[in-house]
Amino acid sequence: MESFIYDIPVKVYFGENQLSHLGKELSKFGKKVLMTYGGGSIKKIGLYDKVVEEIKKAGLELYELPGIEPNPRVESVRKGAQICKEKQIDVLLAVGGGSTIDCTKFIAAGAFVDFDPWDFFSKWAPIEKALPIVDILTLSATGSEMDSGGVISNPDTNDKIGRMEPILLPKVSFLDPTNTYTVSEYQTACGSADIFSHICEVYFDTSKNFFMLDTFMEGMLRTVIKYTPIAMSEPKNYEARANLMWTSSWAINGFINGGARNVWSCHPMEHELSAFYDITHGLGLAILTPRWLEFCLNDKTVDRYVRFGTEVFGIDKNLDKMDIAKRAIEATKDFFFNKLKLKSRLSEIGIDDKNFAIMAKKAVSGSALKGFVTLTADDVEKIYRMCL
Amino acid sequence: MESFIYDIPVKVYFGENQLSHLGKELSKFGKKVLMTYGGGSIKKIGLYDKVVEEIKKAGLELYELPGIEPNPRVESVRKGAQICKEKQIDVLLAVGGGSTIDCTKFIAAGAFVDFDPWDFFSKWAPIEKALPIVDILTLSATGSEMDSGGVISNPDTNDKIGRMEPILLPKVSFLDPTNTYTVSEYQTACGSADIFSHICEVYFDTSKNFFMLDTFMEGMLRTVIKYTPIAMSEPKNYEARANLMWTSSWAINGFINGGARNVWSCHPMEHELSAFYDITHGLGLAILTPRWLEFCLNDKTVDRYVRFGTEVFGIDKNLDKMDIAKRAIEATKDFFFNKLKLKSRLSEIGIDDKNFAIMAKKAVSGSALKGFVTLTADDVEKIYRMCL
Repeated sequence: MESFIYDIPVKVYFGENQLSHLGKELSKFGKKVLMTYGGGSIKKIGLYDKVVEEIKKAGLELYELPGIEPNPRVESVRKGAQICKEKQIDVLLAVGGGSTIDCTKFIAAGAFVDFDPWDFFSKWAPIEKALPIVDILTLSATGSEMDSGGVISNPDTNDKIGRMEPILLPKVSFLDPTNTYTVSEYQTACGSADIFSHICEVYFDTSKNFFMLDTFMEGMLRTVIKYTPIAMSEPKNYEARANLMWTSSWAINGFINGGARNVWSCHPMEHELSAFYDITHGLGLAILTPRWLEFCLNDKTVDRYVRFGTEVFGIDKNLDKMDIAKRAIEATKDFFFNKLKLKSRLSEIGIDDKNFAIMAKKAVSGSALKGFVTLTADDVEKIYRMCL
Repeated sequence: MESFIYDIPVKVYFGENQLSHLGKELSKFGKKVLMTYGGGSIKKIGLYDKVVEEIKKAGLELYELPGIEPNPRVESVRKGAQICKEKQIDVLLAVGGGSTIDCTKFIAAGAFVDFDPWDFFSKWAPIEKALPIVDILTLSATGSEMDSGGVISNPDTNDKIGRMEPILLPKVSFLDPTNTYTVSEYQTACGSADIFSHICEVYFDTSKNFFMLDTFMEGMLRTVIKYTPIAMSEPKNYEARANLMWTSSWAINGFINGGARNVWSCHPMEHELSAFYDITHGLGLAILTPRWLEFCLNDKTVDRYVRFGTEVFGIDKNLDKMDIAKRAIEATKDFFFNKLKLKSRLSEIGIDDKNFAIMAKKAVSGSALKGFVTLTADDVEKIYRMCL
């Protein structure tokens, strides 16, 4: 067990009817608010009007950046940073899902630099200052509402790169499960696949395990398994939406790591799929995760699968270890492809092996992914092929 | 499910060899440090010298308040507040267990008032300002290192009263499991009984349950059950001490409540035992908890016991509900009185029924404890008698 620093000072307003606190929270940071959002779904659900009303009530000055893309692009970061500089914005208000919040984080940093914000990713330019961020979450998936990271795409270079900096952590997050009532069955499934993957990336690790945190991770996985099908069939089920929302935040805010070394595997592999084919992140993860688990299963790693199978899926402890592991992988597939109704193969979503070699090289950043099992570019290519 | 605000901005250095960060963290708040501690065990384990060295290295000015009692007394609060005023202390450093940290919280508040700090409890005098608190934990039990509350005793009035105020939350906590290596078998058991009780006070509640948080609570209870006997028989088992330490913090920092109404029952009953007889808090809780569970079991409450029994103790789900509930209570007794080797009856620790009537009235504050099951003074007296 390694030492670690726990430091997650995000204030969360969880539940219905909390928006009356918005004006007060924004005002702590200044007068000029830049609201960022996506394609306009927040207008359809009436959230936009409510937010504008609260901002007006608080006497704040509102600027807007709509149109942030799923798999947010560096162009939006550039636009947002430009507005911040021109209008001398004091605080950012991201209203949307992980894409909007991710993009807003790098706008917050971009507001203070003279160079192109893509340098944050291509040259790892330092991030020393950032505007404060408040967010209102509308999709349970990425956990961006309570973590310090984000992923930005650059279509010019087919790059999709993530970066974490403590200074990018939102100050305040509004998590109202009713804001996810209109999330479609498919997007709900993809969001949950993302949450499930975030937990697996930490759970399947070679570091010495922290039992208490293992039980939390298993509890969160069981929560996702239990409530995603309910949220899909009863989109206005508060209990289901609330459980998925709070799980999304805790799956990736760093708490469950507990000092584990923890190098992720599926996310870097998926980022290449999204970068090359602009597919939904959660769908890519759902297709990759069980094949990655299959690839990594061996005599050395089997014990972790046994715990996963028995504690998460309730598989009989008395079976043979390898048998439990294989059943656990089958149960994972059943969850993604039957319960969540997601497509199970890349070929079904129009992806062939044309770019696998180059994607694999990019996924391992030229060397290897030193995660649960070390993966070379060849290994990653094999895993992509298992997904065909 | 009720809405709630999550706001726990405590920074935690968890693990070994983190003390090199102490000077830097204290310096954020000023130059003059008042270190508070208990009976000197921190000198025996060498922690005192290490702390003084770090404070000197950082060029800070050190003042000391030793001798804080288990079940800390208002007299220590008065002394500490006086030092803060006289020496114009900038930051408090509590080195010890929950008693020391609890006491330090009200010293932090007392530093800013002209009236007697006991008024915080007897008159609920407002707590509007408090000095910043940094702590170094040496006992896994109360969770004071990550919550905003504390309990202070006044032997003159036989009162033991708790109070929570967000402003009293420590800024930084150093949680090094090796600092608990010398905690005796008995104190380890009492600490774990306290942790177990904190979780039960939230878990057994009539509010609508939050599944994800239920799984966390069950995981924490299983953690305490698994690791306490190990820590008792192998006091230098890092894994056991680490799991107990991190569980102690998360059992009571508010996270697991998830908006539940959550009125506690065993703690108010136990505070009267400690106030009248100065017994160890955890021991009192261990004796009370199974009897309270027995008293509250009925057809309306049984479902919660079923979940508790099956998820925490692995009792067969196929048994009759009431049977599972009774087995769960027996398993709880077995944990406290066999595994933790704690005395099971008040009569064994020299307590008779002489003060039960007055203690029961104080426990319900003159009306009733509206917790999991509403308890009148008569009910509380019955529970005390069950413990004889």
